[in-house]
Amino acid sequence: MNRIFTLLFAFGLLFQGNAQTSEDKVIQSIFDEALTDYTSYRNLEYLCKNYPGRITGSEEVAGAVEYTFKLMKAMQLDTVFKQEVQVPHWIRGDAEKAFILSKRNGKKEVPVISLGMSVGTGKKGLTASIVEVHSFEELEKLGVEKVKGKIVFFNRPMDPTMINTFGAYGGAGNQRTQGAAEAAKYGAVGALVRSLTNSLDDFPHTGVMRYDEGGRKIPAVAISTNGAELLSSWLKKEPDLKFHFENYCETLPETISYNVIGEISGSEYPDEIITVGGHIDAWEPGEGAHDDGAGCMQSIEMLRIMKELNIRPKRTIRAVMFMDEEIAQRGGQEYARQAELKNENHYFALEADRGAFQPLGFGVSAPAERLEKILELKEYFAPYGITRFTQGGGGVDISPLGQFGTPLSSYIPEMQRYFDMHHCGNDTFEQVNFREFQMGSAAIASFIYLIDKFDL
Amino acid sequence: MNRIFTLLFAFGLLFQGNAQTSEDKVIQSIFDEALTDYTSYRNLEYLCKNYPGRITGSEEVAGAVEYTFKLMKAMQLDTVFKQEVQVPHWIRGDAEKAFILSKRNGKKEVPVISLGMSVGTGKKGLTASIVEVHSFEELEKLGVEKVKGKIVFFNRPMDPTMINTFGAYGGAGNQRTQGAAEAAKYGAVGALVRSLTNSLDDFPHTGVMRYDEGGRKIPAVAISTNGAELLSSWLKKEPDLKFHFENYCETLPETISYNVIGEISGSEYPDEIITVGGHIDAWEPGEGAHDDGAGCMQSIEMLRIMKELNIRPKRTIRAVMFMDEEIAQRGGQEYARQAELKNENHYFALEADRGAFQPLGFGVSAPAERLEKILELKEYFAPYGITRFTQGGGGVDISPLGQFGTPLSSYIPEMQRYFDMHHCGNDTFEQVNFREFQMGSAAIASFIYLIDKFDL
Repeated sequence: MNRIFTLLFAFGLLFQGNAQTSEDKVIQSIFDEALTDYTSYRNLEYLCKNYPGRITGSEEVAGAVEYTFKLMKAMQLDTVFKQEVQVPHWIRGDAEKAFILSKRNGKKEVPVISLGMSVGTGKKGLTASIVEVHSFEELEKLGVEKVKGKIVFFNRPMDPTMINTFGAYGGAGNQRTQGAAEAAKYGAVGALVRSLTNSLDDFPHTGVMRYDEGGRKIPAVAISTNGAELLSSWLKKEPDLKFHFENYCETLPETISYNVIGEISGSEYPDEIITVGGHIDAWEPGEGAHDDGAGCMQSIEMLRIMKELNIRPKRTIRAVMFMDEEIAQRGGQEYARQAELKNENHYFALEADRGAFQPLGFGVSAPAERLEKILELKEYFAPYGITRFTQGGGGVDISPLGQFGTPLSSYIPEMQRYFDMHHCGNDTFEQVNFREFQMGSAAIASFIYLIDKFDL
Repeated sequence: MNRIFTLLFAFGLLFQGNAQTSEDKVIQSIFDEALTDYTSYRNLEYLCKNYPGRITGSEEVAGAVEYTFKLMKAMQLDTVFKQEVQVPHWIRGDAEKAFILSKRNGKKEVPVISLGMSVGTGKKGLTASIVEVHSFEELEKLGVEKVKGKIVFFNRPMDPTMINTFGAYGGAGNQRTQGAAEAAKYGAVGALVRSLTNSLDDFPHTGVMRYDEGGRKIPAVAISTNGAELLSSWLKKEPDLKFHFENYCETLPETISYNVIGEISGSEYPDEIITVGGHIDAWEPGEGAHDDGAGCMQSIEMLRIMKELNIRPKRTIRAVMFMDEEIAQRGGQEYARQAELKNENHYFALEADRGAFQPLGFGVSAPAERLEKILELKEYFAPYGITRFTQGGGGVDISPLGQFGTPLSSYIPEMQRYFDMHHCGNDTFEQVNFREFQMGSAAIASFIYLIDKFDL
């Protein structure tokens, strides 16, 4: 791409528009501010580099709590406070190791990572034959006879033809969350789960799993997609090959952590609260940049921009760093419990937990009349190429607010790359593009500004 | 992002739709094929890794011509041929070096790269005072008195508030293309141009420049944006600091190269040609992955998908690897000249030269009635989130076809990240995401399928 005139020509019509309303002007000033100020991007970098691997119970997540608390204090918000949350404390321990033990091809190391809340094998490790399945139905058909004493290898890929990659994630997710519990029913000794990613790469991707209450607890690890492809191809020629893995994770007594909350008080209806948040905890192999340092920093950036531009909201606007989205979702539950105890009026809530990619739009769940008006906000975002305003929104951390009838919404960025970084060592600050990240911050700030301004 | 039910919930409504038409089904099969086949992505990798820096006249571009020719031959297309093109032959020579020579801060190396078609300083280099300007108007005001004997430092950034980054590129571009020529008029001895990128980084970004006919030729280099920021800040405190740079580029006699063309013959109207292309040449600091190996490979992939799915187009569909987009646009000119000589009927043309990011849509220039129908194709792309169908399209390589009345269109992907990679060492295969790249291939193949199918 070189010559300039064709560029201008091809886009000449994009930004011709009608006269700007005063709201259009405010929104433009929000985008201008976001795209020229590096404060939030540098804060995200600081969070990622100083507090990577912020899983609940870790020193890193404690550091991140203090950091975001001090950060919002320094912004001179009207109120900044912490909310105590009791959280799980699971640790990964020493690095996992895993080998395919093949008579044909020898011993081959493959990348694995413990699934969150798994038990560990300890030093001895686990060595067994492999049985590969693609669904729980297939597992059931194999039954105890063919599963007992083996490691069950769940190898159903995320469906690559789904444009909605979150749908593809959902479609493959039960292997990770319930695979070990299901395998244990048939006497399996371990679970090996294909990483939940669209990408063919060498990162094993972790994430939470759960044992059935009273069920046998067998160790469960994720294998990289390249590793899964290799293992599957070797198994076809050598079904009785062995697999060895060792992992050192364990679950410690629960511990205390915090949601961190900063707010600008409403000028007209201070008792009506608009909550915007992401989660400050993150899986430990990466830096929790896209998941979900970005959502946290975008929430804080919304408040910074409002202050900077002297936008005085009618309602109280909160940025919430939710604790423990990844394991037990205790932060979101506690936030709603406190809201009930204090008889807070939660007017609207938005969750940002889909990465820092180019904004597409917002998903909203609200009563029909309110929903219709909110979806009409779409027109304000056309100059920014943000056009996807759809019914259906929410998120793990804000969903407990639904019990109060609070409308719930999701910030929706582009989603083709998200699972390349998700829950793995690839989720680093370097993967976050400044403009995409800040377009998101501006979209969120503008959306909340309009919700408040028009009493939607 | 963890729990699955909220994901499905938030997107539950996205893919409810009406019954599929037969065209909808073909398009779905095109996307399914693209998102599950790695051939094109691996071919792009091969091109990038074996033939990086494919500037006209280079061994690399000659290799890329042979590679793409053989690649299309092996696909058993109906016709594969080359078109001779006479092209400039400019070489960068040994690596550039540049230093800020400051009394206050000492000697500081900064990253620079010769602009394409610049003359070189040779071994002696150039050492002079700096005068910083932000526009040609400012340069004119300074006049000979303040410019003579100095290096003019053009430091106007791309406007970060423009959402259309190509517009921001256009708005800063004359510093690179004409800066040296303008500076020479006032007696400057060199031109130092802020890299055309939105990113603050250490890559110097090159690109073509032109001297005025009969004007004095002064050497011109681009400096990285971080380097430009540093230099500008030092200049504020020490306006008389010196700058030294040396570059070894030179212009050799013009040479012969080729456009490479592969086609599927039309089953009903073989004489009506639909041209889809990118350019095979690329600036040498990178691998020419986004600019524009991607557009080339997406054009070839369109043909592969059509053959694979047994889509038999009514018209002849061509994938064209245009030569020399970056310097003198000779490939596009020669392609049109040959079309005229052979009295070819060019029915439609599309250019893919904006990188391999997530597809947004297409821009189209065509007579009103035809345009209207083409823009209505938008509805077929809604399931894929591709929604931007706008008036105004074309591109450097296909624009000479406009003389025949051929409708011209541009493939438009997301544009926030493009200039991070553009014309610099960062334009590597690793920066191309498989899904984004193949979503683009599928969008292009589907668009061309519909244009042909509906005689648009």
